[in-house]
Amino acid sequence: MGNESNKRIVIGFCGGTGSGKTTLASRLCNAIGDDALILSMDCYYKNNPDMPYEERTKINYDHPNAFDVDLMLEQLRALKEGKSIVHPTYDFTKHLRSDNWVEMDSKHIIIVEGILLFAIPEIVNELDIKIFVETDADVRILRRILRDVNERGRSLESVVKQYLTTVKPMHEMFIEPSKRVADVIVPEGGKNEVAFRMILDAIRKKMDN
Amino acid sequence: MGNESNKRIVIGFCGGTGSGKTTLASRLCNAIGDDALILSMDCYYKNNPDMPYEERTKINYDHPNAFDVDLMLEQLRALKEGKSIVHPTYDFTKHLRSDNWVEMDSKHIIIVEGILLFAIPEIVNELDIKIFVETDADVRILRRILRDVNERGRSLESVVKQYLTTVKPMHEMFIEPSKRVADVIVPEGGKNEVAFRMILDAIRKKMDN
Repeated sequence: MGNESNKRIVIGFCGGTGSGKTTLASRLCNAIGDDALILSMDCYYKNNPDMPYEERTKINYDHPNAFDVDLMLEQLRALKEGKSIVHPTYDFTKHLRSDNWVEMDSKHIIIVEGILLFAIPEIVNELDIKIFVETDADVRILRRILRDVNERGRSLESVVKQYLTTVKPMHEMFIEPSKRVADVIVPEGGKNEVAFRMILDAIRKKMDN
Repeated sequence: MGNESNKRIVIGFCGGTGSGKTTLASRLCNAIGDDALILSMDCYYKNNPDMPYEERTKINYDHPNAFDVDLMLEQLRALKEGKSIVHPTYDFTKHLRSDNWVEMDSKHIIIVEGILLFAIPEIVNELDIKIFVETDADVRILRRILRDVNERGRSLESVVKQYLTTVKPMHEMFIEPSKRVADVIVPEGGKNEVAFRMILDAIRKKMDN
């Protein structure tokens, strides 16, 4: 199946919070198995260790400037050349880069996902297939509320406030317009079985070639 | 390659006038070759031979009621069962069903395309993969103008009038909302090489199985 000498194929998944892009990307990665890796843009939030905690909580995490694009680009390009990387991870409770760096070997299929993936032209240039996951805003915010309140212990009020002050305006400013660079738009990300199967079949066909 | 005993796969392409859906559907059909056929919803406009010509020109051809859905469904189901059909064609100059009925043998891959394909639930139910071709309205009307004026000898004024009085309102009432049933949305239909390749690879993978 996997042919390490083949050119790597890089597939990017973008979409708003709660769109289902991570679910779709993960399902595809799992279905492909050992020949695929998944790289999350969330790992590349900028580190601001000199900034006090209070100030760090106020960073706009939904703006392209919040990301360490240089490091992400460098590591994505390394993976494309077949090299291993050691990528950062981000600690969302401390709002700091975590001490836990993760070693990752390159694979034939490189899946990259993130809310602002298509808003950064240098990254867009590295993607062979660009898939935007589109889900209605009301469905997305409901998913985010369930996740942040139930899984991350946040108050409903804080989720609503963050959504209305940064998440929604940044979505409309950067994420929604970035849909224009997509090759394919998938409605209802993680639950769309036909699209999942279609993308998987297309990737497998590419791997067989 | 082709395996006539396999279950037929029906792929529907929908999208507004000038979206590029027909171009994309035709390119895919040609790329698959002998194992694919393309069935156009345009062939199934209702016949109104008892209506005077003047009245026929006023029919709203952008409304689902303009189509002979029963005949289209019957013939689509026949193709899915591996049977041959003799389908009607439509004479747009006379606004009448033409005398030219066309014999069509069933194929492994059945491609169906039309502006109102996804607006008719009984037809949607027959489709295994539903692809909506999405192109900006300004680009679509420019393509339509070029086609209708240059290729169909219509006056610019008549194209503009028809567009504003029926094409655009019907698009917004029936076509745009029907996007919700799509499994995959393809921006910029006929010119989108990555989507073309992805859909083709997915179909070929299905054919190999």
